[in-house]
Amino acid sequence: MPAYKAPLRDTRFLMNEVFDYPAHYAGLANGKDADPETVGAILEACAQFCEQTLSPLNLSGDQEGCTLKDGKVTTPKGFKEAYEEFVAGGWQGLSHPTEYGGQGLPMSLGLIKSEMMGTANWSFTMYPGLSLGAMNTILQHASQELKDLYMPALTEGRWGGTMCLTEPQCGTDLGQVKTKAEPNADGSYRISGTKIFISSGDHDLTENIVHIVLARLPDAPAGTRGISLFIVPKIKVKADGSLDGSNNVVCSALEHKMGIRASATAVLNFEESTGYLIAEPNKGLEAMFTFMNTARIGTAVQGVAHAELSFQGALAYAKERRSMRALSGKKEPEKVADAIIHHADVRRMLMTQKAFAEGGRAMIYFAAQYSDHMVNGILENDAKKYKEWDDKLGFFTPILKGFLTEMGLESANLGMQVFGGHGYIKEHGMEQIARDARISTLYEGTTGIQALDLLGRKVLLTTRGKCVREFTATIAKFAVDHLRNPKLRRYATDLGRYAAEWNLLTMRLMLSARKDRDVVSAASHHFLMYSGYVMMAYFWALQASVANDKLAHGGSEKPEFYKAKLAMARFYFDHLLPRAKGHASSMIKPSKTLTKLPVEHFVFE
Amino acid sequence: MPAYKAPLRDTRFLMNEVFDYPAHYAGLANGKDADPETVGAILEACAQFCEQTLSPLNLSGDQEGCTLKDGKVTTPKGFKEAYEEFVAGGWQGLSHPTEYGGQGLPMSLGLIKSEMMGTANWSFTMYPGLSLGAMNTILQHASQELKDLYMPALTEGRWGGTMCLTEPQCGTDLGQVKTKAEPNADGSYRISGTKIFISSGDHDLTENIVHIVLARLPDAPAGTRGISLFIVPKIKVKADGSLDGSNNVVCSALEHKMGIRASATAVLNFEESTGYLIAEPNKGLEAMFTFMNTARIGTAVQGVAHAELSFQGALAYAKERRSMRALSGKKEPEKVADAIIHHADVRRMLMTQKAFAEGGRAMIYFAAQYSDHMVNGILENDAKKYKEWDDKLGFFTPILKGFLTEMGLESANLGMQVFGGHGYIKEHGMEQIARDARISTLYEGTTGIQALDLLGRKVLLTTRGKCVREFTATIAKFAVDHLRNPKLRRYATDLGRYAAEWNLLTMRLMLSARKDRDVVSAASHHFLMYSGYVMMAYFWALQASVANDKLAHGGSEKPEFYKAKLAMARFYFDHLLPRAKGHASSMIKPSKTLTKLPVEHFVFE
Repeated sequence: MPAYKAPLRDTRFLMNEVFDYPAHYAGLANGKDADPETVGAILEACAQFCEQTLSPLNLSGDQEGCTLKDGKVTTPKGFKEAYEEFVAGGWQGLSHPTEYGGQGLPMSLGLIKSEMMGTANWSFTMYPGLSLGAMNTILQHASQELKDLYMPALTEGRWGGTMCLTEPQCGTDLGQVKTKAEPNADGSYRISGTKIFISSGDHDLTENIVHIVLARLPDAPAGTRGISLFIVPKIKVKADGSLDGSNNVVCSALEHKMGIRASATAVLNFEESTGYLIAEPNKGLEAMFTFMNTARIGTAVQGVAHAELSFQGALAYAKERRSMRALSGKKEPEKVADAIIHHADVRRMLMTQKAFAEGGRAMIYFAAQYSDHMVNGILENDAKKYKEWDDKLGFFTPILKGFLTEMGLESANLGMQVFGGHGYIKEHGMEQIARDARISTLYEGTTGIQALDLLGRKVLLTTRGKCVREFTATIAKFAVDHLRNPKLRRYATDLGRYAAEWNLLTMRLMLSARKDRDVVSAASHHFLMYSGYVMMAYFWALQASVANDKLAHGGSEKPEFYKAKLAMARFYFDHLLPRAKGHASSMIKPSKTLTKLPVEHFVFE
Repeated sequence: MPAYKAPLRDTRFLMNEVFDYPAHYAGLANGKDADPETVGAILEACAQFCEQTLSPLNLSGDQEGCTLKDGKVTTPKGFKEAYEEFVAGGWQGLSHPTEYGGQGLPMSLGLIKSEMMGTANWSFTMYPGLSLGAMNTILQHASQELKDLYMPALTEGRWGGTMCLTEPQCGTDLGQVKTKAEPNADGSYRISGTKIFISSGDHDLTENIVHIVLARLPDAPAGTRGISLFIVPKIKVKADGSLDGSNNVVCSALEHKMGIRASATAVLNFEESTGYLIAEPNKGLEAMFTFMNTARIGTAVQGVAHAELSFQGALAYAKERRSMRALSGKKEPEKVADAIIHHADVRRMLMTQKAFAEGGRAMIYFAAQYSDHMVNGILENDAKKYKEWDDKLGFFTPILKGFLTEMGLESANLGMQVFGGHGYIKEHGMEQIARDARISTLYEGTTGIQALDLLGRKVLLTTRGKCVREFTATIAKFAVDHLRNPKLRRYATDLGRYAAEWNLLTMRLMLSARKDRDVVSAASHHFLMYSGYVMMAYFWALQASVANDKLAHGGSEKPEFYKAKLAMARFYFDHLLPRAKGHASSMIKPSKTLTKLPVEHFVFE
């Protein structure tokens, strides 16, 4: 397994040189304490925890997996100690309110923390990650009494949390949820039903686990309009916060999964478990989705994480494995053969991984500032501000989640490819990265769902193309601003063309979708991927322009770093961006290409 | 795990309606017995064996894996009985000479047999598959004495075989092989060294295992020109063919692999094992590669196999799983939701799988006829004929192996994607297909090696573009012939353009590679993928033209089958072929985009 090294130079480049995080934090209500010195110290401490504690547990965690015995779930060796270190470091409450014991820092810092942790050990990171989902939901929708009861232990990390949505018959289509909630005399509810695929659904890391559960009230309307949201603790909690015995939440099985094997994925049976309603009755789904954008961007991080880790492993191997000679002549004549990094096609694979890791990181660090503003809207009780930024973020969410996880999966597979046959052997850890990455395009809404969300909801329904027009205006402005710079002209020219084309394609789809609703589903995948490639192109050009500036104006930093950024931008535009051409062509093909073949004619015997 | 159903209708379509196998077989020296009735009976019997015996062992084989205990390797439960059934059916010798007990039928039938077997259970199929490699090498290069001694038991399947190339320090770069062969007084050799990644290297299916081993003679020149080829049996063989005790071939470990877990991948230590030289001294590498084209096409089959199996699983699930409503309105209003096959994006995934499975099958069945001619060259002792057809095949080999295995991997991943989160769970068997498929782009020459072989060797070095000119001439002729047919015009137009572009791109690369050798490696991946997409487009258009003919002229077969072929051709041209655009654009970018970044600037800390 590659030993993880946090890419702090790239993080600092993005935060300080590209996106001016110091100014961004200075402008936030909760950003005053996030001064550059504090942020720097947090990043260093987080890197150390990830490199020294989490990374060494990644391979062993996969090999051992989680076990369920006598109703108890045990995480792999070392996870409990690592989690204790995580709690002691105060990491869980980094971006959560000080009134519950958190550090009250901006949301984006929490995202950067989870990027590092997730790269070092994605399975481990899912435990506190799911707790964050529960915490955000409770903070936003629960009564003060419930917040006071649950938030301190969750913020500390002493308790964990989950999100219980999926049932055997439904995942995406939550209108089919069957779990029941029947009222008790004291205002609480009896929750009964089976939930599957519950990440961190049971484990031995925390004293208690707080489940956020979707269920139906007795008189609820059918479908999505009849779903309510409940807090259901694994162990009952007394009014003073102390624990009060089992709440009949039974972990009946752990799923046997392709990857993320150190993350316990549970089947949970709620057997008249006591639950507490949060949010309004029958409005559970909306409430559950309040923090969906941030949750999905948290999953988008997985794409960057696996691209980065697989790149680090493949790069180390490519420098030491010797095979054949470079076509342009021996690079290491004194050795038996050249290191494979001297072969252009191996470089293509490594640079693809690096381009997706660093390009994706830039996209996420950009969007993370929007989520900071959104959270500030909540903190300031400013519903308009909240909605404005949540809507802005909503355009990025499906692109980041859908596109970056697909690219993370590709990058993880390229890392195996650099290793050749050795990539297939478990001991090297490269195949684990590919197995771990494989879940990222499936959960938190499949890529297909992200594509529908982007084209159907965000572009066509909600904004009638405005979100595309706004973002392409940003791209076009960049293009105009840099067209006269010989070092950047090439990027400016390409971006100008793609910005125009993206708008044009959007327009065409809007028009044809009016007559033919199937267009939306038929075009959605290609539209998503196209959007991803073009958006990432902008963020590579932006990095190139900053690097170009720094090279022109000197400074104390190594010029090689900036030259590498320029080389990577060129690589992205030469070898990855052209993939958008195929998607552009396919998205405007008639929907009947997909819909016409009768179901019974897919196979013949 | 999807229960495999052999796609016999498609096999018959390709053999009888598209490629006229009856006429092809009638023209072969060894094809007289392959009359339509015999072939039909063989296909039926093979399908039955695959569906009833091999398919049910696929999931359990993966779960159990192989074990090494006290020096003995045990295959999963049921494998030995299935192998006995395979031997009893005479399947191993299907395409091998009657003089050694085979059925003497054309090579292509063997390939179609292994396609069915491999789709049902790839891990199982590797055991007899490796034996075929050993058999072909012995047949072509060993003395009559060695042939008489080894071929009958191998042809029967009573003994197995392997190919021992890879060592810890080298896989692709076999010039680094260190295994030694020291002469004995009796003309045999003492073989000493370690071989890794030996598929079927040890197991309990056969009485003996015949290893084909690359090793160096004491006075051998360094590098690839000093490698010789040996037969090294696991158990010594007496002159009468009976077994004679251990030959010191020690299986010291089984690799822990991502997939194909029921296939035993061994580390073999040869400890002064007795070996017998075949082929000329120091010419071992050339001899080993005699049947490389057929071996690689045998691996290309894996792409088709996994695309097919994953398609079958995903299709069944897409018909039964219900989620949401089709965008154009309810398709199954009486149900709680529509089956997901009614969503256009789900269809896009299923049709992608189907397009790669059926398009790839067509490519393989076409190339298989070339391999029949090549074998006939050998049978007729006609070196010129052999070389002519082997060279023709040589153009298809890297495209089929490189492109189809990548598409098989993509298809296997799409199958998981159709299942959503359930695709990630082991019990459904969909993730196993993705893990099994993952090896196919790594062994038998990685995709990168196929790409170099295609562009560097086949196109630029050996034929100076002639192979591309010849194949695109075939495409162009098809385009001209069908341009006036309104049902086929669209395919003809697109193909005409791509044929011209393929030639143009080849020419540009030839010119720029003269000045810059790195161009070959830098462009090779994109050239391979481009070639694959365009070649498959031709084979889809060809199927469409046959289907169109059959629809126009009636006949006894169901018209729906042909209509589905037309729908699939349209899908391929609308949604998959446009990917070639990106590759076309990237392959002509300067090589320095890849080569310029200094090795030490790939990361900064």
